[in-house]
Amino acid sequence: MSKHHFIEKCLIRQSKVGNCLCAGIDPDLAKLPSKYSQDLTGLEQFLLDYISFANDHVIAFKPNISFFEALGLDGLRLLERVMKVVSNDIPIIIDAKRGDIGNTAKMQAKFIYDYFNADATTLHPYMGSDSVVPFFEYKDKFNFVLVLTSNPSHTDFETRQLATGEPMYKAVLDKCDDWQQQYNNVGCVVGATHNGLADIRALNDSLLFLLPGVGAQGARYADVYTQAQNKDGLCLINVSRGFMYADQFDDSTISKILKN
Amino acid sequence: MSKHHFIEKCLIRQSKVGNCLCAGIDPDLAKLPSKYSQDLTGLEQFLLDYISFANDHVIAFKPNISFFEALGLDGLRLLERVMKVVSNDIPIIIDAKRGDIGNTAKMQAKFIYDYFNADATTLHPYMGSDSVVPFFEYKDKFNFVLVLTSNPSHTDFETRQLATGEPMYKAVLDKCDDWQQQYNNVGCVVGATHNGLADIRALNDSLLFLLPGVGAQGARYADVYTQAQNKDGLCLINVSRGFMYADQFDDSTISKILKN
Repeated sequence: MSKHHFIEKCLIRQSKVGNCLCAGIDPDLAKLPSKYSQDLTGLEQFLLDYISFANDHVIAFKPNISFFEALGLDGLRLLERVMKVVSNDIPIIIDAKRGDIGNTAKMQAKFIYDYFNADATTLHPYMGSDSVVPFFEYKDKFNFVLVLTSNPSHTDFETRQLATGEPMYKAVLDKCDDWQQQYNNVGCVVGATHNGLADIRALNDSLLFLLPGVGAQGARYADVYTQAQNKDGLCLINVSRGFMYADQFDDSTISKILKN
Repeated sequence: MSKHHFIEKCLIRQSKVGNCLCAGIDPDLAKLPSKYSQDLTGLEQFLLDYISFANDHVIAFKPNISFFEALGLDGLRLLERVMKVVSNDIPIIIDAKRGDIGNTAKMQAKFIYDYFNADATTLHPYMGSDSVVPFFEYKDKFNFVLVLTSNPSHTDFETRQLATGEPMYKAVLDKCDDWQQQYNNVGCVVGATHNGLADIRALNDSLLFLLPGVGAQGARYADVYTQAQNKDGLCLINVSRGFMYADQFDDSTISKILKN
């Protein structure tokens, strides 16, 4: 099966910048550095500065749509504008955590893929195939399904032991593999904070992992890369708070993230 | 524990209209009756006619935000406007299927509860407690967590057998009960199409169920009510396509839905 366009784009960026960093975009007025005016105008200027800097250093961007939605429709308009300043060669993953019955999922995909023209998104698996397939049917787009997340309560359901002896997330991982075989545009969200990251990787050496949890949530970049890269040497290591709200944007910001 | 304001509102409406109907609002330009102009203006007029009619006949409204999002930001503005024509005594559930790590879930709740001022919403359980608790912390709002859905692929994960011998959705149902004990504003989404609806009800006689699947998806109102009402005699039986896109809006529309 030929490599998906999204993966090609990531690999080209990786060889250019020499890392697998994905820059989260989680705009939060409460965390806006004091040198910006403390309003939407200041927030927009801050995001433009952040993205302009990150354009030279990362392989993907991941705007978290919920942070924009929290600002109301003005926030969603802001998302449209800031997406335009991302370099053309960098894919944009709108982190939206969607998934619903078929006719609704179709509408969700229209919003993320037709309206915003994102390159990829994130999806909840709970409702099964027909809640995510409408996204997979956008052949040029890529989809990351939640498998094992970085939040403390991932133990509520994700790690429940099934009658087969396996944890629930393993069933989701296997299903992602089936979907990837069939659609060629499916990867997984796996929290970077898990000690057993290498074990999860060992279960499947090819699926592309998107890994939140480096920085504010405590995981270290180098450890995560070593354990989570697939057989192409690729994974997407997301840093949001630890990058956006760093003390300054210069080469030391990146080396601090890569070496933390 | 005293009854939540949302439940009080539903019970008052139920005694007024004599049913447990929840009117779905899934605006779809492709299904707009031909007597309306085939654009957003026509769609808005259609929604206003539908809501004005349903105002006299239902106990709740459930706009599906994904159908509005599919129309872009103009669609979300349309949602804001149509919510204003719902009678003040009728609660509005924005069907949004949200849920994410804590700081993101907080932003999602801001959008649904602060920005849109919905009375309730729907949530994905996969990521566990901290992905839904930020919604529960809005004490005046009510939350329906996905337990067992009406789409065919609910068998992919929701009915997986756990090591305890129970299906996955039973673990989610039990967790909803814990959350309800603690927060007093948690109910469940249970697909109306399940043969075993009475069995699910028997597992828990108090949680409030929101039941999609009557009409287009095949379930019958009377059967669903008999099996899914809680000990207060309450449940929310949602009809979307079978109501909105009925041939006309008059008393026969309602009696057809209730008798189908």
